[in-house]
Amino acid sequence: MTNGTFITFEGPDGAGKSTIIGMIANQLENTLLTREPGGIDIAEQIRRVILDKNNTAMDPRTEALLYAAARRQHLIERVKPALDEGKIVLCDRFVDSSLAYQGYARGLGMDEVWKINQFAIEQMLPQLTIYFDIEPVLGLKRINKNKGREINRLDLEDLEFHHRVREGYQILLERFPNRMVKIDASGTVEEVFQQTLQLVKEKLAIL
Amino acid sequence: MTNGTFITFEGPDGAGKSTIIGMIANQLENTLLTREPGGIDIAEQIRRVILDKNNTAMDPRTEALLYAAARRQHLIERVKPALDEGKIVLCDRFVDSSLAYQGYARGLGMDEVWKINQFAIEQMLPQLTIYFDIEPVLGLKRINKNKGREINRLDLEDLEFHHRVREGYQILLERFPNRMVKIDASGTVEEVFQQTLQLVKEKLAIL
Repeated sequence: MTNGTFITFEGPDGAGKSTIIGMIANQLENTLLTREPGGIDIAEQIRRVILDKNNTAMDPRTEALLYAAARRQHLIERVKPALDEGKIVLCDRFVDSSLAYQGYARGLGMDEVWKINQFAIEQMLPQLTIYFDIEPVLGLKRINKNKGREINRLDLEDLEFHHRVREGYQILLERFPNRMVKIDASGTVEEVFQQTLQLVKEKLAIL
Repeated sequence: MTNGTFITFEGPDGAGKSTIIGMIANQLENTLLTREPGGIDIAEQIRRVILDKNNTAMDPRTEALLYAAARRQHLIERVKPALDEGKIVLCDRFVDSSLAYQGYARGLGMDEVWKINQFAIEQMLPQLTIYFDIEPVLGLKRINKNKGREINRLDLEDLEFHHRVREGYQILLERFPNRMVKIDASGTVEEVFQQTLQLVKEKLAIL
């Protein structure tokens, strides 16, 4: 279908995803580092509808369809052209985020959310998805450390949700054993970076 | 699921759909006459993204997902509450328009477009769908007559598309024989109205 290599990165905020992806991009030539909606005009317009704080009446299924629509447009306008040029596309979150968050943790159903995402991406699944796994409390501590504050009551409520998200990713790892690989993100940045780089290089050597 | 009755109306522009639906609504009590996006704020925002003339880069699948998203929100905010109150909801176009136009005539595939619409509507299919069938040339003549102009070259190009739309509806009639009924819309307004009223009343008597 294409000459490039499509690699996505998944996991909760606080797992160090963005830092690591940036470091990986610096190690490789001919890469595109992106994330949805990524400055693609139509995708940005859709994202604005999703995030508008006045849209409190938004149904969870409407939201999931809008995420899929923004994904489609970003894929067609940014990811696919780069893959066609032979680039290595590193994408920060992709379908698996929708499956873990909306499908599993929010309860819409993974199979249901998969249906609309399959429509959105057709055959353009990543060749490799690296999942940064971290115990939710540890991820939360990292986020709060960056913000310079302590864990509060609302954080603890969020924790339950983040445990469900982690369960969702675990199910995905079992469902897509060839595409998805888990990395323990509790180590130091350097440790996680080296492991990630190793996985990416192995994939590029095989392809 | 609900106490009301959900009836949708399909067919090309020029078939006289809107006129007839208005006449039907006048004959019945406790009705809601609606069409997407129907003034529902989130659905209107989504429709604006679809129709924005600057969005020429919009991919057909993005568009189909956005239509499904606007449909979901209109269904949840307007149609479902009315059905729950026991109303007869008369909706001008619904899923079958997406299946005939995007799925069949524009070539995305009916099964593919059905997937995302099934996600959008869950089990909330209409109990009755009335399809106003008209030979595309006749429909076009009616539209042009209203606009006070003759058929031109572009109209003739459109005709091929409208033949495909008609084929799409024909496939849907075969696929949903219990839900969908075809009415010959080539007759006078009074004739078509009487036939439609008959069908609606039969459905209401049965339910």
